[in-house]
Amino acid sequence: MNGNSIGKVFVFTCIGESHGLIVGAIIDGCPAGLPLTEADVQSELDKRRPGLSGVSTPRLEEDRVEILSGVYRGYTTGAPICMIVRNRDVDSKPYEAIRFRPRPGHADYPAAVKYGGFNDYRGGGRFSGRMTAAYVMAGAVAKKLLNLLEIEVLAHTVQIGKVKLSKRVSYEDIRVNVYRNAVRCADPEVAALMEDAVLKAAEEGDSLGGVVEGIALNVPVGVGEPIFDSLDSDLAKMLFNIPAVKGVEFGAGFKAASMRGSENNDQYVVKDGKVFTLTNNAGGILGGLSTGMPIVVRVAFKPTPSISKKQRTVDLKEMREVDEG
Amino acid sequence: MNGNSIGKVFVFTCIGESHGLIVGAIIDGCPAGLPLTEADVQSELDKRRPGLSGVSTPRLEEDRVEILSGVYRGYTTGAPICMIVRNRDVDSKPYEAIRFRPRPGHADYPAAVKYGGFNDYRGGGRFSGRMTAAYVMAGAVAKKLLNLLEIEVLAHTVQIGKVKLSKRVSYEDIRVNVYRNAVRCADPEVAALMEDAVLKAAEEGDSLGGVVEGIALNVPVGVGEPIFDSLDSDLAKMLFNIPAVKGVEFGAGFKAASMRGSENNDQYVVKDGKVFTLTNNAGGILGGLSTGMPIVVRVAFKPTPSISKKQRTVDLKEMREVDEG
Amino acid sequence: MNGNSIGKVFVFTCIGESHGLIVGAIIDGCPAGLPLTEADVQSELDKRRPGLSGVSTPRLEEDRVEILSGVYRGYTTGAPICMIVRNRDVDSKPYEAIRFRPRPGHADYPAAVKYGGFNDYRGGGRFSGRMTAAYVMAGAVAKKLLNLLEIEVLAHTVQIGKVKLSKRVSYEDIRVNVYRNAVRCADPEVAALMEDAVLKAAEEGDSLGGVVEGIALNVPVGVGEPIFDSLDSDLAKMLFNIPAVKGVEFGAGFKAASMRGSENNDQYVVKDGKVFTLTNNAGGILGGLSTGMPIVVRVAFKPTPSISKKQRTVDLKEMREVDEG
Amino acid sequence: MNGNSIGKVFVFTCIGESHGLIVGAIIDGCPAGLPLTEADVQSELDKRRPGLSGVSTPRLEEDRVEILSGVYRGYTTGAPICMIVRNRDVDSKPYEAIRFRPRPGHADYPAAVKYGGFNDYRGGGRFSGRMTAAYVMAGAVAKKLLNLLEIEVLAHTVQIGKVKLSKRVSYEDIRVNVYRNAVRCADPEVAALMEDAVLKAAEEGDSLGGVVEGIALNVPVGVGEPIFDSLDSDLAKMLFNIPAVKGVEFGAGFKAASMRGSENNDQYVVKDGKVFTLTNNAGGILGGLSTGMPIVVRVAFKPTPSISKKQRTVDLKEMREVDEG
Repeated sequence: MNGNSIGKVFVFTCIGESHGLIVGAIIDGCPAGLPLTEADVQSELDKRRPGLSGVSTPRLEEDRVEILSGVYRGYTTGAPICMIVRNRDVDSKPYEAIRFRPRPGHADYPAAVKYGGFNDYRGGGRFSGRMTAAYVMAGAVAKKLLNLLEIEVLAHTVQIGKVKLSKRVSYEDIRVNVYRNAVRCADPEVAALMEDAVLKAAEEGDSLGGVVEGIALNVPVGVGEPIFDSLDSDLAKMLFNIPAVKGVEFGAGFKAASMRGSENNDQYVVKDGKVFTLTNNAGGILGGLSTGMPIVVRVAFKPTPSISKKQRTVDLKEMREVDEG
Repeated sequence: MNGNSIGKVFVFTCIGESHGLIVGAIIDGCPAGLPLTEADVQSELDKRRPGLSGVSTPRLEEDRVEILSGVYRGYTTGAPICMIVRNRDVDSKPYEAIRFRPRPGHADYPAAVKYGGFNDYRGGGRFSGRMTAAYVMAGAVAKKLLNLLEIEVLAHTVQIGKVKLSKRVSYEDIRVNVYRNAVRCADPEVAALMEDAVLKAAEEGDSLGGVVEGIALNVPVGVGEPIFDSLDSDLAKMLFNIPAVKGVEFGAGFKAASMRGSENNDQYVVKDGKVFTLTNNAGGILGGLSTGMPIVVRVAFKPTPSISKKQRTVDLKEMREVDEG
Repeated sequence: MNGNSIGKVFVFTCIGESHGLIVGAIIDGCPAGLPLTEADVQSELDKRRPGLSGVSTPRLEEDRVEILSGVYRGYTTGAPICMIVRNRDVDSKPYEAIRFRPRPGHADYPAAVKYGGFNDYRGGGRFSGRMTAAYVMAGAVAKKLLNLLEIEVLAHTVQIGKVKLSKRVSYEDIRVNVYRNAVRCADPEVAALMEDAVLKAAEEGDSLGGVVEGIALNVPVGVGEPIFDSLDSDLAKMLFNIPAVKGVEFGAGFKAASMRGSENNDQYVVKDGKVFTLTNNAGGILGGLSTGMPIVVRVAFKPTPSISKKQRTVDLKEMREVDEG
Repeated sequence: MNGNSIGKVFVFTCIGESHGLIVGAIIDGCPAGLPLTEADVQSELDKRRPGLSGVSTPRLEEDRVEILSGVYRGYTTGAPICMIVRNRDVDSKPYEAIRFRPRPGHADYPAAVKYGGFNDYRGGGRFSGRMTAAYVMAGAVAKKLLNLLEIEVLAHTVQIGKVKLSKRVSYEDIRVNVYRNAVRCADPEVAALMEDAVLKAAEEGDSLGGVVEGIALNVPVGVGEPIFDSLDSDLAKMLFNIPAVKGVEFGAGFKAASMRGSENNDQYVVKDGKVFTLTNNAGGILGGLSTGMPIVVRVAFKPTPSISKKQRTVDLKEMREVDEG
């Protein structure tokens, strides 16, 4: 079976592998006439480039996007938009070792079983975090469309390891600060603590997880197609497609489970002829439809499984346990 | 746009409304030759019937399934299976009040905006928890197919309000106990506490949320269709289609965010010629593929928004605030 | 695999069997607010009711549509619309004979193989012409939507057996005449000849095929979603879903193969500030897009395979040839 | 809306434009472990390369396929396979003229309206016959899969202009002869007549249409997913996606309309313990399912609309008629 396209109107197909020739995104369903240049996409790709801080992956990913189709004279044509980045700086040799000795926490083992050993295991292949470069390219196009509707999407890191952002930050804090530090935190002081925690774990050959909060502003009332293409369902589906994601919650999320109805219900008020809610425990979604309040989603990332500590695994050819790392 | 079908191979379409004539499920893609009777589906429907305990909705839902198509002489034919239950015991009069005065926490408001007031608002219409009767009918067929593969699916309540199940329960505890109490808890003592909490909240005109844990046993290695139809993505998508669900997490879930890679990675071992992991922080899913370990998912339900306490809302016709309840 | 839904925006799912309890249509994607009553659908169903003339099937199909969901107070709600007719006047006994002795020209044989004998073979089951009752119900809803756009769809019989409609008929001839005769021909004289031909064949225990021409007027320019959901592709796909259809052609169709480019190309002219073509060999479709000219499609139906003449078939249990009829 | 992917299991997405950077095919759903090299695809692409005969388009299309993803060490990996050819030898200047003066018989006019003038009109853009290079690349992969099932697909030209292949040709004639002449005819003498006809029309600044017959051998009984993904429906849908196709018929096709049931029904016989039909008027398809007999489809192509004769069109900017050519 296939599963490499997502979306019903704006369809995103993800191609490529971590150590293959390319990583690419195809968008089918973008209307004709949208101004779109490689620079538009590049500026988004640049944001995911690992910095020099040592906080993130050491891979030097100087991705340059190439738009191969769907754009003519600076405007989308209505035809599918194919965008690729070429893989460079790849050293696939170390991965021969994992072919038969799956790394704990990676998809190596189930992938080897599923694809009968034919999957491209180098660098994790299709299961590499590098695939998110395609998500970013697709997102760059989506963002331009959302901008036309004045919808703004923000995201910031609210937890890394045991360091949590406990103070409230404003949307403006997020806009201004997240790209000023390597951990994408809206509060500079907490960012420093998070960076320290990451570096300390790395020194010990270990890694940390975290939580990211996403916010969408100005989403009109009624977005979502219940029953099954409800807004929260579709957002959750896409978010869990990032392999490291292990939890997704909207608004009060898991906390709602210990609240009472009278606390959790967001009561309606009128202001300037518009309907608002006093609170936003719903995270902007009721019955799978946007309420007009900010969409708020929190996403739990597990610690990256690539660590240098010794770990037990199994040699699949010899079916015996081995220690690696 | 449409959004009332889900699935690629086994396609489930949900029809009906809370106070319309029927609630129904159509399954397209069930192989021919599966033994299937109305009794098979009825026994699952009976499990969701609110008891006499006062713990759940007072609506008397004595649903009798009718299979209208796709089954001949006790076997599926390969044609679409249409199953319906008729709505009885519906008193729609009280809902005239909500047409223009949306209930906090319900989908009334965004639905009225989205459908221009043409949606069937009686009893919440398409957004009623009653739609899950269709999920149960579809699930009854799915369960029979999963049984052929010896896959077993369990679920139990692990939290209601502030009462949590903290002790470990075995799969056998779940199998034996959950249908013995109204709150579907695998531990009888905790069940009693949960029931008390529900009744107490109800007495005060209020409601409680909770957390349900789902477990799938014997799922073969490699189920899931990355990148976008990954197993966790598709499970999360379906779970968020229950309107009350506000959070979904797999394995260690949100806790993974504060773990280190060395703690969170599940190390591989061999036992009786088979590959296992020592822990199951992954909840049986890596890279969107099943690992062969139990699939473990926890789902946060918000407290039911139907409460009798006074709440503020807005009269949409007059665009002024009113207190209801 | 499944294949009982069609359409991307307006999704039609067909359920039921020829001799089962019902035949039904579910529409997912009809916008909220369309006036729709059972009478609207019934008037279309009545048109397909076999007359008393002996020209068509003797089955007495007094189908009464019931709308089970998706309509409230006379308007569509945006939820899926489920419409059914109950099967009456069915005598399934004669079909026991065909279970292992497939009728030539029917789907009995490949269906028995595909579904391992579990298909509902009574009356042809899913492969019966009766399934088109569901097409008519879905079409009734589609027609109401098309009417809003002032699109009109006409159809008339242009050939039965060797009797062809050779003279030109106007759209008004079609509107006025087709439901005045049993063969749906726009010319009363040719209709009489066609009826004679059908009756004569029937007397001899035989049947005739025919050709129907469909015309859609006022389709705006640019309808169709190339490359693969082009307008002609989607129309052809739906038309070939009528089991008796063996050919589909647009505009000049097969005749275009023997024309020269200079003859076949439709040249553009301007009239009243609008663009037209002098001829319509394209049948209103170029590159899979509507041109604004009438859509013209001709559809070849094979003679109904149900005949009373003796025919050779195979007893599948005994794997020997037998003569039936 | 989008429409550039086709297929449910083996999903083919077509990207690129006639005069853009590339034409490409992405396959999602090809199983892992299929041997696949660029040479496999190249050998199919070479067959569509216009020869030196002057019979076909003068464009020099020396397409070299590049596989960008989905193949590792000569085997498919289960990931999407992206194949591209780069566009060379393109002279886009002549196409500035057509931007506002649509060529009769081409998609220029409806495309300009649909995409608001933003479509890439150079060389016909997405509506160019060149897109079929992508179909060939996808077909090369499909062919390798079909070969595993011992399914063989043949095609040959049976008519060009008024020259028809009237004698019967064997499958072996087709295999041996079609690539020995520029018109892909299985009979060398008729091929010569066809070539003459094409050249004569070309001398006069004109073009010819034709009919191609496709045959699939060894298709197992029961392929097709009724009601809506029936085999003939899906084949017709794909065939009409070739912009020049105006008609599709299976087996007796339009001739079936003038046959009697007793003539058209294919009677069953047993031979060597297998079920056959004495005739194949069904073209190997009954009720949308393969019967085990050869699938036979005939496809009508209109004459290529690119002619050098003078033709009337409309200047869309000035909205006045002009003569071009």
